[in-house]
Amino acid sequence: MIPRRGAVFLFSTIRHFSSRRAVIYSSTGDPAQVLSVSKISPLPDSVPVGHIAVKLLLSPINPADINVVQGVYPSKPKIRDNLGTPSPAFIGGNEGVGQVERLGDGVTELAVGDWVVMTKPQLGTWVSHAHVESKDVTKVDKRVGEARAATITVNPPTARGMLSDFRSLEEGDYVIQNGANSAVGQSVIQIAAARKLRTINVVRDRPNIDELKKHLTSLGATHVVTDQELADVSMKTRLKEWTQGKGIKLGLNCVGGKSTTALAKHLGSNAALVSYGAMSKGPLSLPTGLFIFKNLTSYGYWQTRWYETHSPEERQSMLQEITDLMLADKLGAPEHEILVIPESEKDATRVLREKLMLIDAGRYGKKLLLKFD
Amino acid sequence: MIPRRGAVFLFSTIRHFSSRRAVIYSSTGDPAQVLSVSKISPLPDSVPVGHIAVKLLLSPINPADINVVQGVYPSKPKIRDNLGTPSPAFIGGNEGVGQVERLGDGVTELAVGDWVVMTKPQLGTWVSHAHVESKDVTKVDKRVGEARAATITVNPPTARGMLSDFRSLEEGDYVIQNGANSAVGQSVIQIAAARKLRTINVVRDRPNIDELKKHLTSLGATHVVTDQELADVSMKTRLKEWTQGKGIKLGLNCVGGKSTTALAKHLGSNAALVSYGAMSKGPLSLPTGLFIFKNLTSYGYWQTRWYETHSPEERQSMLQEITDLMLADKLGAPEHEILVIPESEKDATRVLREKLMLIDAGRYGKKLLLKFD
Repeated sequence: MIPRRGAVFLFSTIRHFSSRRAVIYSSTGDPAQVLSVSKISPLPDSVPVGHIAVKLLLSPINPADINVVQGVYPSKPKIRDNLGTPSPAFIGGNEGVGQVERLGDGVTELAVGDWVVMTKPQLGTWVSHAHVESKDVTKVDKRVGEARAATITVNPPTARGMLSDFRSLEEGDYVIQNGANSAVGQSVIQIAAARKLRTINVVRDRPNIDELKKHLTSLGATHVVTDQELADVSMKTRLKEWTQGKGIKLGLNCVGGKSTTALAKHLGSNAALVSYGAMSKGPLSLPTGLFIFKNLTSYGYWQTRWYETHSPEERQSMLQEITDLMLADKLGAPEHEILVIPESEKDATRVLREKLMLIDAGRYGKKLLLKFD
Repeated sequence: MIPRRGAVFLFSTIRHFSSRRAVIYSSTGDPAQVLSVSKISPLPDSVPVGHIAVKLLLSPINPADINVVQGVYPSKPKIRDNLGTPSPAFIGGNEGVGQVERLGDGVTELAVGDWVVMTKPQLGTWVSHAHVESKDVTKVDKRVGEARAATITVNPPTARGMLSDFRSLEEGDYVIQNGANSAVGQSVIQIAAARKLRTINVVRDRPNIDELKKHLTSLGATHVVTDQELADVSMKTRLKEWTQGKGIKLGLNCVGGKSTTALAKHLGSNAALVSYGAMSKGPLSLPTGLFIFKNLTSYGYWQTRWYETHSPEERQSMLQEITDLMLADKLGAPEHEILVIPESEKDATRVLREKLMLIDAGRYGKKLLLKFD
């Protein structure tokens, strides 16, 4: 029912069972300068106590991952001196799905063959094989498929958290969001639709805008408007008609700058504006009167913080809720491409750097998923 | 112990017992155009059921009162067709202390001679005499004196509310505020000091800055810095020393624009930024990262909303808390001037318009209190 667009680009079909490979960097900086795809030391034979050996199946590249490489993200990865690289190096990647290949002593809650996702940030998922502590992963249902499993820990939980934690919403209530075609935005549309909430989705104008509107509508969007349409004076009247005068209680923002100012002005009294991104790189600029007289509250949402402040049981229950939506065919994978990492280190590095620059510019349009084969 | 600076400017000493006078306007607009001081119809002899007849003793002019006259404030006064004016008119003023002169039937909780303040907004306090519903007023302790009684319902409760309702603060915790020499700012300093909280107070640079710093320190300010000092790179280190590395949990803002951006950057993780004014008329401009990664929350505070959403008992208890601080000599009157309204309507109108323009420009520096004599 929900479209899943995925294309596999096969740069290499030769399989190397024996080698371990990763996307690494030894100092932070411009990804096009510092990143490389490299063979690294194989894992030791013995899996440490409480750990599991995992073969990564798919590892997404999120915009935040690029900021980590640039060294401008608050979460820092661990530098490693056991990769066999000329100097200690970081392994990139925060998210991904892996298959359990071996269990260390004391691991009883998982079995060989299970699929797991990382619930601790910055473990380094752009790698073919890894040893990770079993407490830092959660089992994921194979029936959701590789692409949805690989992208289950950041974007859908962000959408779910923002729809759940700030305002109590009832069936028929409206939510407004910008960057609505982002991976999180698509999750918001689907989770909101599953809860019978209505969404007003703001996107940048673009040549294929009708196609995009159609796609988001097919996901469950109630209305899709461009930034220009949102800023038009007629929008106030249209919104009143759509919402039948009931104030919009929740606004979700991943853009910043003017787009967010326009969005915030359409919120009702006592609303929450929740920011989870700043694609425009502009600050949040909001008239003080919205806070004083309309009792607007402006919050931030960061899935990393959510994981840090919630128990393993809460994390499991949240992932179960997302999984249930996926299995009920109410939450699809984001639009994505699978990049099978070329065998040649040089080719692989070049291709990856190109993709990362496009993603950093916010122009890739699809989630890129790395596959070491 | 706490300095009280008050100067009485007597423009007229002739008393007119028989006439009722008010500051009125028949349409909203520029105060220098629309406002006039005018004789109006005397009150009817019979006080309506549930009402009291009050002689106003002192009526402050708040910056918000000017916005009401301009027609740009969300709270609207009631237009009256019983003032004997050529066309229906508004009476200005939101705050003030009055003495009860007569009681209507059914009023048992008040006695003639009591002092009362308005707890319902926009009742029109720039008037010599008024009938008001007894449920819309609260008795105030005469021992606090006229100036503190007249200014008790807006500024001190705003300071108290912002210090109480957003973050749980413990002895020794730091609060940072801009516009620290505003009437609210002065209340914040004193209420915080009474609670053994420490305050960092940001003010605009000015010729008599040392005098101002001394004055705010005498009120209980822990530190007073200018906007320039706050923006200086050295401030991060100084703040760390002052707070011993403990994050500042609460920032109070009545300025907006750059001043608030600088202030917000000094807040710790999980802090609240509470805005109650926008003296610079600039919007709140805040890096999105503060919300996402430092979990900043930005709120507004409006005393009018507080009154609307709290019970008479809560209002009474809040005013009692303020009164207790005043009687314990821990909360003084704001710096103020008493303007005795000149007898001549022309002179009175001219003087008042001049004062209002200065207050609107944010350059008056003292609270102006109107006295009809």
